[in-house]
Amino acid sequence: MQGIILSNETNALTLAELPKPTLKPGQCLVKLSAAALNRRDYWISVGKYPGIQPEVVLGSDGCGVVVDGPDTWKGKTVLINPNVNWGASEQHQSSDYSVLGMPTQGTLAEYIAVDEDRLMQKPVHLSDEEGAALPLAGLTAFRATFVKAKVTAGKKVLVTGVGGGVSQMAAVMAIAAGAEVYVTSSSEDKLNKARKLGATAGFNYQGAEWVKEAKSVGGFDAIVDSAGGNALNDYLKLIKPGGKIVHYGSTTGKPQELDLFRLFWSQASIIGSTMGSDREFEQMVAFVEEHQIRPAIDGVYALSSGVEAIERMADSSQFGKTVIRMEA
Amino acid sequence: MQGIILSNETNALTLAELPKPTLKPGQCLVKLSAAALNRRDYWISVGKYPGIQPEVVLGSDGCGVVVDGPDTWKGKTVLINPNVNWGASEQHQSSDYSVLGMPTQGTLAEYIAVDEDRLMQKPVHLSDEEGAALPLAGLTAFRATFVKAKVTAGKKVLVTGVGGGVSQMAAVMAIAAGAEVYVTSSSEDKLNKARKLGATAGFNYQGAEWVKEAKSVGGFDAIVDSAGGNALNDYLKLIKPGGKIVHYGSTTGKPQELDLFRLFWSQASIIGSTMGSDREFEQMVAFVEEHQIRPAIDGVYALSSGVEAIERMADSSQFGKTVIRMEA
Repeated sequence: MQGIILSNETNALTLAELPKPTLKPGQCLVKLSAAALNRRDYWISVGKYPGIQPEVVLGSDGCGVVVDGPDTWKGKTVLINPNVNWGASEQHQSSDYSVLGMPTQGTLAEYIAVDEDRLMQKPVHLSDEEGAALPLAGLTAFRATFVKAKVTAGKKVLVTGVGGGVSQMAAVMAIAAGAEVYVTSSSEDKLNKARKLGATAGFNYQGAEWVKEAKSVGGFDAIVDSAGGNALNDYLKLIKPGGKIVHYGSTTGKPQELDLFRLFWSQASIIGSTMGSDREFEQMVAFVEEHQIRPAIDGVYALSSGVEAIERMADSSQFGKTVIRMEA
Repeated sequence: MQGIILSNETNALTLAELPKPTLKPGQCLVKLSAAALNRRDYWISVGKYPGIQPEVVLGSDGCGVVVDGPDTWKGKTVLINPNVNWGASEQHQSSDYSVLGMPTQGTLAEYIAVDEDRLMQKPVHLSDEEGAALPLAGLTAFRATFVKAKVTAGKKVLVTGVGGGVSQMAAVMAIAAGAEVYVTSSSEDKLNKARKLGATAGFNYQGAEWVKEAKSVGGFDAIVDSAGGNALNDYLKLIKPGGKIVHYGSTTGKPQELDLFRLFWSQASIIGSTMGSDREFEQMVAFVEEHQIRPAIDGVYALSSGVEAIERMADSSQFGKTVIRMEA
């Protein structure tokens, strides 16, 4: 079968011919119809992810049909839970946790072998491409938005950098939950797309006055962010007393300082969030089904163009997920 | 009567002759026997507190006897809740909140007029000096430790800078609740004092290896801190996955950067805390009574030496509270 790996020889992403996985007891063989990219794949491709190993199939998100394994699963179209060894605690992942797709074999290939407890049936309202786009982004967005930021109906929420796969899902999930959702982006086009999905308003964070504009709507109960950097001090100006700023990434790096006085006087919290528990994965899929949520898909590429698709993530121009179709 | 104010003429702390307060309906006149100092008084004295106003009696903590007002209170020895207009939310103070003692008349005087809902009877196990030492530090420590850091029996807690009035109370309260309490200080003497009060171990944060030493005890469920500064990045190394770092002050200023990757990967939170609600004040006094807790008192000064006592706070050499006796 074909799959995308980081080649040991060239140290670059390569579409390679690989052996079809063999099954261990309790595992299912999934013939993937679609996979989706995550920023994680891009970070790995540029050597900026912890624990990089060569010759391992990348990819954390997949949708396909079970072609071998226990009879209860055979023939079903499934999504794959991207958690590997989350562990027993709802609060945090275990010390031997990893995300599917390095060090374990991932989804950017024609087949994958996974433990049957990683599988969930694809919600019927989703296409295979949409199903593939859901797992990692949906889980990360669900935990950040509901478990950590405690977003509920009527709360005012700011979701930053709304083009990303997770932030787009966070915005759509918060809207579905009845929250009043605001977004930021550097792209007017992305702000418009978010408004069409139900966001109340958007702010262009490249504008000199965006913090003032955002403040004029009266402060936010929660801010969901993966940019990090110095914007954190702006968020401390925008958060309501007692509000929650949730970070699930730090793509712009570390803030150069942090206004702790504002943090403690406003009784605010800065809360870290990564992925989500296996229970939250089930809750997320149920929530997506209940609210008939569809992940935004920015583009669909063949597996043969997968390497270029990953390299294309460098400029963050996409709105929503980049999906890879396995079939020729 | 005599009271300590920031003089409009000299712009310095002064013991001045002032009119005895007159009562509004529902108020009580308290003849103070003791007051206690807080870092707030020092910040005001050096011009580093928001909203400084001259000619107002300083002081947030007081204990005394009700000598005028409703009959239900007359003759009783009371503590004063230092919250002014906390407001209806348990989550945060209202927008017109202030701490007793500027802009409202404070406790560093022979008499104070306060609304009767600010009064609580002094727990009988406390002397007047101990009673005066309790309110602000006790309330701040109670909220930071139990409401924000969620410390319960068996949790491992690090309380930093254990000499301070609040941190000393936080350590003693956490010990009383059955937590395993560790402390930091730059003073071996203070570390020893904390161990005598029941702390499991102490770390001298001026030692090059203190983070390594602290890590060797296995990580903390919660860290309660008022130093802020770059130590925050050390705390992110010491916190257990899912743990809570609570800040109620930032005496060493803003951290020069913040390791957000560690924050989100470890599912940790940085939580701001200021004072506490009126309900928490009642809970705190009840907790202190139940566990027979006594605030540590570093020294007792006459009101006539109060100005020097405030100036002395510059070097942070004290362990626990500095108390002012009103009687000659």
